[in-house]
Amino acid sequence: MAEEYKYEYFNVTFPAEYVAHVEINRPEKLNAFVEQMWLNLSAIFKRLSHDSNIRSIILTGSGDRAFTAGLDVTVIDRSPQAASQGTLSQSSSDSARTATALRRHIFEFQGCITALEKCEKPIIAALHGISYGLALDISLACDIRLCAADTRFSIKEVDIGLAADIGTLSRLPKAVGNFSWVKDVCLSARIFGSDEAEKVGLVSGVYGGKAEVVSEGLKLASLIASKSPVAVQGTKEILNYSRDRSVEEGLRYTAVWNQAMLQTQDVKDAMLSGLQKKTPRFSKL
Amino acid sequence: MAEEYKYEYFNVTFPAEYVAHVEINRPEKLNAFVEQMWLNLSAIFKRLSHDSNIRSIILTGSGDRAFTAGLDVTVIDRSPQAASQGTLSQSSSDSARTATALRRHIFEFQGCITALEKCEKPIIAALHGISYGLALDISLACDIRLCAADTRFSIKEVDIGLAADIGTLSRLPKAVGNFSWVKDVCLSARIFGSDEAEKVGLVSGVYGGKAEVVSEGLKLASLIASKSPVAVQGTKEILNYSRDRSVEEGLRYTAVWNQAMLQTQDVKDAMLSGLQKKTPRFSKL
Amino acid sequence: MAEEYKYEYFNVTFPAEYVAHVEINRPEKLNAFVEQMWLNLSAIFKRLSHDSNIRSIILTGSGDRAFTAGLDVTVIDRSPQAASQGTLSQSSSDSARTATALRRHIFEFQGCITALEKCEKPIIAALHGISYGLALDISLACDIRLCAADTRFSIKEVDIGLAADIGTLSRLPKAVGNFSWVKDVCLSARIFGSDEAEKVGLVSGVYGGKAEVVSEGLKLASLIASKSPVAVQGTKEILNYSRDRSVEEGLRYTAVWNQAMLQTQDVKDAMLSGLQKKTPRFSKL
Amino acid sequence: MAEEYKYEYFNVTFPAEYVAHVEINRPEKLNAFVEQMWLNLSAIFKRLSHDSNIRSIILTGSGDRAFTAGLDVTVIDRSPQAASQGTLSQSSSDSARTATALRRHIFEFQGCITALEKCEKPIIAALHGISYGLALDISLACDIRLCAADTRFSIKEVDIGLAADIGTLSRLPKAVGNFSWVKDVCLSARIFGSDEAEKVGLVSGVYGGKAEVVSEGLKLASLIASKSPVAVQGTKEILNYSRDRSVEEGLRYTAVWNQAMLQTQDVKDAMLSGLQKKTPRFSKL
Amino acid sequence: MAEEYKYEYFNVTFPAEYVAHVEINRPEKLNAFVEQMWLNLSAIFKRLSHDSNIRSIILTGSGDRAFTAGLDVTVIDRSPQAASQGTLSQSSSDSARTATALRRHIFEFQGCITALEKCEKPIIAALHGISYGLALDISLACDIRLCAADTRFSIKEVDIGLAADIGTLSRLPKAVGNFSWVKDVCLSARIFGSDEAEKVGLVSGVYGGKAEVVSEGLKLASLIASKSPVAVQGTKEILNYSRDRSVEEGLRYTAVWNQAMLQTQDVKDAMLSGLQKKTPRFSKL
Amino acid sequence: MAEEYKYEYFNVTFPAEYVAHVEINRPEKLNAFVEQMWLNLSAIFKRLSHDSNIRSIILTGSGDRAFTAGLDVTVIDRSPQAASQGTLSQSSSDSARTATALRRHIFEFQGCITALEKCEKPIIAALHGISYGLALDISLACDIRLCAADTRFSIKEVDIGLAADIGTLSRLPKAVGNFSWVKDVCLSARIFGSDEAEKVGLVSGVYGGKAEVVSEGLKLASLIASKSPVAVQGTKEILNYSRDRSVEEGLRYTAVWNQAMLQTQDVKDAMLSGLQKKTPRFSKL
Repeated sequence: MAEEYKYEYFNVTFPAEYVAHVEINRPEKLNAFVEQMWLNLSAIFKRLSHDSNIRSIILTGSGDRAFTAGLDVTVIDRSPQAASQGTLSQSSSDSARTATALRRHIFEFQGCITALEKCEKPIIAALHGISYGLALDISLACDIRLCAADTRFSIKEVDIGLAADIGTLSRLPKAVGNFSWVKDVCLSARIFGSDEAEKVGLVSGVYGGKAEVVSEGLKLASLIASKSPVAVQGTKEILNYSRDRSVEEGLRYTAVWNQAMLQTQDVKDAMLSGLQKKTPRFSKL
Repeated sequence: MAEEYKYEYFNVTFPAEYVAHVEINRPEKLNAFVEQMWLNLSAIFKRLSHDSNIRSIILTGSGDRAFTAGLDVTVIDRSPQAASQGTLSQSSSDSARTATALRRHIFEFQGCITALEKCEKPIIAALHGISYGLALDISLACDIRLCAADTRFSIKEVDIGLAADIGTLSRLPKAVGNFSWVKDVCLSARIFGSDEAEKVGLVSGVYGGKAEVVSEGLKLASLIASKSPVAVQGTKEILNYSRDRSVEEGLRYTAVWNQAMLQTQDVKDAMLSGLQKKTPRFSKL
Repeated sequence: MAEEYKYEYFNVTFPAEYVAHVEINRPEKLNAFVEQMWLNLSAIFKRLSHDSNIRSIILTGSGDRAFTAGLDVTVIDRSPQAASQGTLSQSSSDSARTATALRRHIFEFQGCITALEKCEKPIIAALHGISYGLALDISLACDIRLCAADTRFSIKEVDIGLAADIGTLSRLPKAVGNFSWVKDVCLSARIFGSDEAEKVGLVSGVYGGKAEVVSEGLKLASLIASKSPVAVQGTKEILNYSRDRSVEEGLRYTAVWNQAMLQTQDVKDAMLSGLQKKTPRFSKL
Repeated sequence: MAEEYKYEYFNVTFPAEYVAHVEINRPEKLNAFVEQMWLNLSAIFKRLSHDSNIRSIILTGSGDRAFTAGLDVTVIDRSPQAASQGTLSQSSSDSARTATALRRHIFEFQGCITALEKCEKPIIAALHGISYGLALDISLACDIRLCAADTRFSIKEVDIGLAADIGTLSRLPKAVGNFSWVKDVCLSARIFGSDEAEKVGLVSGVYGGKAEVVSEGLKLASLIASKSPVAVQGTKEILNYSRDRSVEEGLRYTAVWNQAMLQTQDVKDAMLSGLQKKTPRFSKL
Repeated sequence: MAEEYKYEYFNVTFPAEYVAHVEINRPEKLNAFVEQMWLNLSAIFKRLSHDSNIRSIILTGSGDRAFTAGLDVTVIDRSPQAASQGTLSQSSSDSARTATALRRHIFEFQGCITALEKCEKPIIAALHGISYGLALDISLACDIRLCAADTRFSIKEVDIGLAADIGTLSRLPKAVGNFSWVKDVCLSARIFGSDEAEKVGLVSGVYGGKAEVVSEGLKLASLIASKSPVAVQGTKEILNYSRDRSVEEGLRYTAVWNQAMLQTQDVKDAMLSGLQKKTPRFSKL
Repeated sequence: MAEEYKYEYFNVTFPAEYVAHVEINRPEKLNAFVEQMWLNLSAIFKRLSHDSNIRSIILTGSGDRAFTAGLDVTVIDRSPQAASQGTLSQSSSDSARTATALRRHIFEFQGCITALEKCEKPIIAALHGISYGLALDISLACDIRLCAADTRFSIKEVDIGLAADIGTLSRLPKAVGNFSWVKDVCLSARIFGSDEAEKVGLVSGVYGGKAEVVSEGLKLASLIASKSPVAVQGTKEILNYSRDRSVEEGLRYTAVWNQAMLQTQDVKDAMLSGLQKKTPRFSKL
């Protein structure tokens, strides 16, 4: 199975039953992202999404120093010219044509990160060290955020002259209930630590060092993987759906979702196991 | 008046002027819910909603051990077969027909809990002890959540093989500003205590024991009941409306709401009482 | 430039490059608002919004005692009769006609406060002392809220017989991730302090006294003003847009916004300055 | 079965297999509505919605002269005083309290008409003669509108001093693609005939006289009743859902709906019958 | 009264009780628009909106040849440079800064046209002759569209290199129920006549010549002006609101609107007049 | 270039400058669709979307008899079992697992058809002969629908036991302004002809035979291809966006879109050409 998950810049392993561990692997560059990396990130999670051997996922960064330092600006040129080369067959000095190239580029990049949110299985991001820019875009598309005490966060984009456009500005106001703080860190690009991240609810757990947070993340991933995948995947789906809509819309969607899902054998198996104090075993999904 | 509020499994009393106290009353079973209970819960709150003698409500669970342990799984069979018997006139082995029965059943059950949110008067849930599953669905449909220090919460549904479908997954992301934590407790079904509930903002007050939280809840209910019912009921309505929509939609609805409500005598009475340091008396609503 | 910003009841100064300081100036009345004040407030921020000499703004209240005590009820009569005089050419005893006058009046008042949210430049509210009623409406339309330790907040409206209709009820549930607390303070009108405000996330910083919070606010305003105005203004725009819509809508809008904005010279200047450890200088916007 | 459907002012018959015929029956008053009538109308359609013996419904008015002339204004007093008596336990001269009574009354009345839209089985309205006011509210909550050549329509409400509030103003702009015409007839209250109704798409068929349109309606109802009820009811549900939302939302809901419904035996039965040129028989739903 | 409505490029007259006639008056240039014209158009309709002497409005173009030929491209330069001069204090060659100037300019221009949609009184557009570009933007913001047989329409914008941005593309798909045709005329910029406009529902009436359509428009305006202004203005408001939202949202808003408006004396007056076959007289609004 | 567009079951040609002609090519089976066909259809339009040599597209069916007869039910098994094989690695008899497989399958299929709506260049569908089921799903995702006089349409899905789930039910109510007719044809599955299709606005033009409609479609495609691609593509984008949202949202998006696009050279070129009565030439996009 590991063979199927060979992607440059990533290690994908399977540390426990039904659990995948995806590691960003470019430690010599603080796991800074080049374009191939977000393409591969997306490919990995699209595959995991439909892989019936997987029920939960942990995402980490290799090395001691960084989850990721963000975009590798020494390699990636986010300038219009660069974008044009990627998606328009000719370079152009016309603003509308450059805009078209940029828009296509942003949509593609956003889509790669949104692949994590759309992945049917829950993803736990375990952050440590430098966690700048794209670190936020990526971890906000995950379901649960844990971090090591040494984590330093920054929403860096205004410092390079742009409004963050890969997801942070759209997801952060819905992940954290302190809009004043959200604006503060997005407008100032200041670095903040794990205590502050926990206090405002950006992360739901802080652990000693990288080893610890990864270990805790794995424990949580294993716990989730032991539950009915019908229940777990439905819960992720409905929570994401409801975040973006009225309670009334959420309730209706939930009922229509569960009109199929309550027919599963898992309900009976889970209930019986509960009564018998046994660990249930669920079919693949 | 108490005569009108005789419903099996509930005690409804009137401990202070304009205040109703609804107590879930099946302590020998940890206040676990059978179907008649949610039907009665809904009936009580629909009646209170239009009862001009009532301006605020406190909801508690009887006994020392539990607000409610959730569904009584020893009696309630949430299986498709059971749902079919309830709402389709013949049993069926066809998945689409079973789905229809399940959907109708979920909509009816959701509607009973939503009756609390739609109740025009504010509801304070005072939780204690075991508060699992349905305890969350119910208290999230209330307006204010207080709890005793010994409260143990759990969003239990994944442990019985299903995604919670009576309201928790739609309301919790909007009640608590920590989406990572929301996913953690919904996906893991783990038990958490009052400190954690307060820290993330699930409850807005923790008090010593059950007696204390109920007493505090009553004090708050009495305070609210002393205000203009036009002001209080408008405030509940607009807050719930705005939670689910854009600020712009919220403002428009508010203006249209208040074009009628500002014509009330209560504004003059309240202002005059304020200047005279007297307690205003408001007409029934 | 200061000449252009002479408005009764307000002091507008320019304490640092690209920074404006707007001070509510009616200290003898605890900065309580009369109608001319919200009209002027709106005019000032509409002008600042398009003033290319300004990149960030701090809003404070003059005097030691109050940011603002809210509406000046000794002068402003929010009664239907008063509203009718303002916007209908004849007084009327017909409820529908009075409703029309009231609705027009509320829309106009709301619009004055929303002018702060629509102002293209970020606004930092630095509160102190008495901060009641309109203090919340106004500061919730700002981007960042800081306060002095002595600040006393209250959402006073239910105490004068009405549901707050100038913005608090629509913005607060989206600014603070604790819906139980939001309902508590909106329904009870109780006074709460800076600690509570910080704990629930209504403010993102508490500082010793008024002098300190204003000084910190200015520092933050100066920091933001040193960044690319293209990046900063885009960030404010997208955060406000995303707060009110689904993540998917937010991402799409962001891409279309940035298809123009990424073409700016600021990206190159900011990147180069970053590499050279120099302070970038950006063109006016 | 007819026994179960005995409701004052209505005849409910079963003219063909799986088909119900609901006739408004107060011909001596041009089928004008008194309150008991909309309560009964709602009760009938709620029952039909879950009655597995019914797959489609036709709605008509008895007598030669009218589908319905609308509200019986000689009996129904839509004044605030009347509404107050219905839903507030005391009469009141306070505008806010009167508004509350009116709002509750409107919501209840709207809910009775919306029961037709929510009825899971398709409803064909066959109109003739006088079809004023409530005739539009009711038929717009049906799925298909047919009419006799002599039908005279009018959205009468502005002529009695009010904006129509039971459904016409919300449903008509989505039923007919000519917003200029919609405004014309709603603002002028003018009477228009079947030709005009057909031209703008308010009705999808015009037939000679009442007998003819009822006969055609029955034929169509029978045709629909011969199809798979899983397919038919899903089609109604998804069309109504999609009318009110973006295409993207519609597609998502459709997929989640059909993940259950495609598991039905009806697909196989329908396909097989198609190949064998036989009439399929479907299980009850 | 006419004195108050003196605006360059427009004639405002009062041909009947409660009716205003606004005439675009630059016939020597086919009523082509220069900037002052849309500013004045907006000012006129904002004033009419709150003018209690007016209950309905007709909008026409002076001269025989055109309602309006659209923008006066010989005078108005919609280029970025021109926009920059208007709203940014310095010219700029930076794309992001130019974009900001353009966006502000478009928002201001859109706002002027939207003033017609927001005008509380119904507006009837009576078109004739050349009706290009802005003629569509403007008339689609009106409530009812009538035209003379000789009217020639064109959505001209693609022929000058841009997507129409003042309202046509947002309002046309909701005014006309033929999305294929909408795309055809918007993408091809072809000229079409009154027959086609009527067939697809862009106009709800075609009359012989200009004199006839203006006369018919006045008749309709007078009819509407004879009705209760509470009923008429509520009907316009709710129809526009409902066009843009779900039926469920429309119903809720309607109920909250009418909880105030049904308290009007107009209902009694209208009903009584109806019974007495007399013409009712309503108070000003 | 034609080399790049070799896809089984399709002919892609380039009959005029900037115009592509996509022909469904399985005439021996009435162009009925097997799975590879919708995958290829999607691939073709995704490529055309970003191909700067193409500015408009016409879509037709090969052969005399059919645009397409819909799904090839002799080959495609839409049963749960079949879907399971495609997307779940093991067959399953658990309803929830089957539902998951079906949902993934529907989403993938929907996505292939939505690729036409998302294609940045306008698409003209020219239909003829048998146009059943998928013919509607596909042509409703196109921009303009023309048909030959002999076209026979049918929304066939209820006849095979299911609610149409690939797009028709979500797009048809927004393409045609006659909701009664929409329900009629969707619920009855009856066949209707070109006259009816034109009358209700499903198609915007009917032409003699297949040769004629294809010729007219090409003419229209050529006309559109001669316009500024910045203008044309913006127009398609904004019309689709606005169809699904409020006018207010549409206007805002339009302004943000055009803040980039108005900076194009095309505006100047188009205006100048207009004045000089010359045909403009626009750069690639």
